Amino acid sequence: MSLVAVGTVAFDNIETPFGRAERVVGGACTYIALAASYFVQPVRIVSVVGGDFPVDMLDFLKSRGADLDGLQVRPNEKSFFWSGKYYRDLNTRDTLDTQLNVLADFDPVLPEPYQHAEFLMLGNLTPQVQLRVLEQLKRRPKLITMDTMNFWMDTAMSDLLEVLKKIDVLTINDEEARQLSGELSLVKAARVILEMGPKYLVIKKGEHGALLFSEDELFYAPALPLPEVTDPTGAGDTFAGGFMGWLAKTGDTSMENMRRAIIYGSAMASFCVEKFSVERLQELSPELIQKRIQQFADLVHFKL
Amino acid sequence: MSLVAVGTVAFDNIETPFGRAERVVGGACTYIALAASYFVQPVRIVSVVGGDFPVDMLDFLKSRGADLDGLQVRPNEKSFFWSGKYYRDLNTRDTLDTQLNVLADFDPVLPEPYQHAEFLMLGNLTPQVQLRVLEQLKRRPKLITMDTMNFWMDTAMSDLLEVLKKIDVLTINDEEARQLSGELSLVKAARVILEMGPKYLVIKKGEHGALLFSEDELFYAPALPLPEVTDPTGAGDTFAGGFMGWLAKTGDTSMENMRRAIIYGSAMASFCVEKFSVERLQELSPELIQKRIQQFADLVHFKL
Repeated sequence: MSLVAVGTVAFDNIETPFGRAERVVGGACTYIALAASYFVQPVRIVSVVGGDFPVDMLDFLKSRGADLDGLQVRPNEKSFFWSGKYYRDLNTRDTLDTQLNVLADFDPVLPEPYQHAEFLMLGNLTPQVQLRVLEQLKRRPKLITMDTMNFWMDTAMSDLLEVLKKIDVLTINDEEARQLSGELSLVKAARVILEMGPKYLVIKKGEHGALLFSEDELFYAPALPLPEVTDPTGAGDTFAGGFMGWLAKTGDTSMENMRRAIIYGSAMASFCVEKFSVERLQELSPELIQKRIQQFADLVHFKL
Repeated sequence: MSLVAVGTVAFDNIETPFGRAERVVGGACTYIALAASYFVQPVRIVSVVGGDFPVDMLDFLKSRGADLDGLQVRPNEKSFFWSGKYYRDLNTRDTLDTQLNVLADFDPVLPEPYQHAEFLMLGNLTPQVQLRVLEQLKRRPKLITMDTMNFWMDTAMSDLLEVLKKIDVLTINDEEARQLSGELSLVKAARVILEMGPKYLVIKKGEHGALLFSEDELFYAPALPLPEVTDPTGAGDTFAGGFMGWLAKTGDTSMENMRRAIIYGSAMASFCVEKFSVERLQELSPELIQKRIQQFADLVHFKL
């Protein structure tokens, strides 16, 4: 089934305790599309880049079956740029610089085939841009997942609440879930957030795994403990890409299959953090992915 | 099979964002013994209290099948006292006060039946006291588990390393694993620590669950997300009590059964934090425990 992914395609400067990477390819949509491409093709991309974005990477996305008809290229402008620094605890980071550039007045335009999307992933962007995408849909997708962040809770809460009413799955991290709900306990936070519109809530806890809440079920997927974590950038987006890629591939949105999708998302995220930027996501294979999925199954296996 | 539990029996002052409790019963051995008592009886206690310790609680321990022959009572002295404060993130706490009292010169004495222990739980205490217990054993227990803390790594590292050579399972938290090994990655930390002696390492991550490492296997047990966490004090000891209680009950130290034991430990810890002090551990039943174990099974269940 078809998957449309909306989000940034960008450059990042990244500093971690283990090294630096300058002006590497990043952006939520890039990570989502690459991760999802191992499950479903085409992934139809809705984004914007400047003339500085490398053609090589666009070609690579095409070679992974991405549909770039919804990617606006503005030759005389610059791509979105983010610079961040991670500390010893890779779960926390500081943003050092954000240059919106082409993103400042981004107005997403969905080509005709995109308007019939069966699965839609709204990556982290202004809630207004997310709403503009929803307005252009000719039919209700089978499943809409959205990501967002604390910044929009601080600056665009009413728009955010409007998007939340129109989507099925919200993916945020634990601190964002606490902020959005005003509750410390994630169980209570989930109850509040599910009242805001989404039928499912995914709370991403980085190295501590991810929780999936529905009205009456709760699923906890661990993260795979890794010997080396090089760069956590994009892990959440890669998770979303694996999650939506699996759901779009199978077309099955039952809770049983969502649990499986969370594991696929977690597996893809576990690859993502092994190298800087999207490097690791460029060299995977179905065999490597299946092997890692099996590691997740072994990791949590017990018999009563 | 028989279980011997060594550790403090004490008073605590506890302050959390949700309330306070003053001079309530605490101590590692108390939590271990109560949790284990739901699986195996007797739990043979090695500890020391002052004349201020409530007879009611000793009677309650007896009613739960505890053997108090190894509990020294010093009528004219005071029990060990700890005072701590938890912040919004219940994973971190500050110690406000520690009064060693009877613990200052505690010399554990194992009554004859204790010297043939099949399962031994060395709760967090001076490594020298842990060694003194090991010296009195007439035969090697089937399994020795020990807990320790960063304080002993700072102040008694060489004694600690000596105990580590003589035990089977070490239970510590993630920061302690990093400190003991000098490695940031828990996977690398585990490799280093397993070289120090233990065959198994349990890394407790509070609300993020627990990891069990052996030389060639890795198991990740989630913590149960709870609507209310009242007081995390003793959760790690309760975990150890459930873990060792299950192993002593079944007498099976295979990795498969250790995974199960970790789930039993996690389930007992999930009860512990629901109320202050040992309150919740005094009102459980096999039915309640089995129901919670099933929640853990549902929590992580997925089919590939």
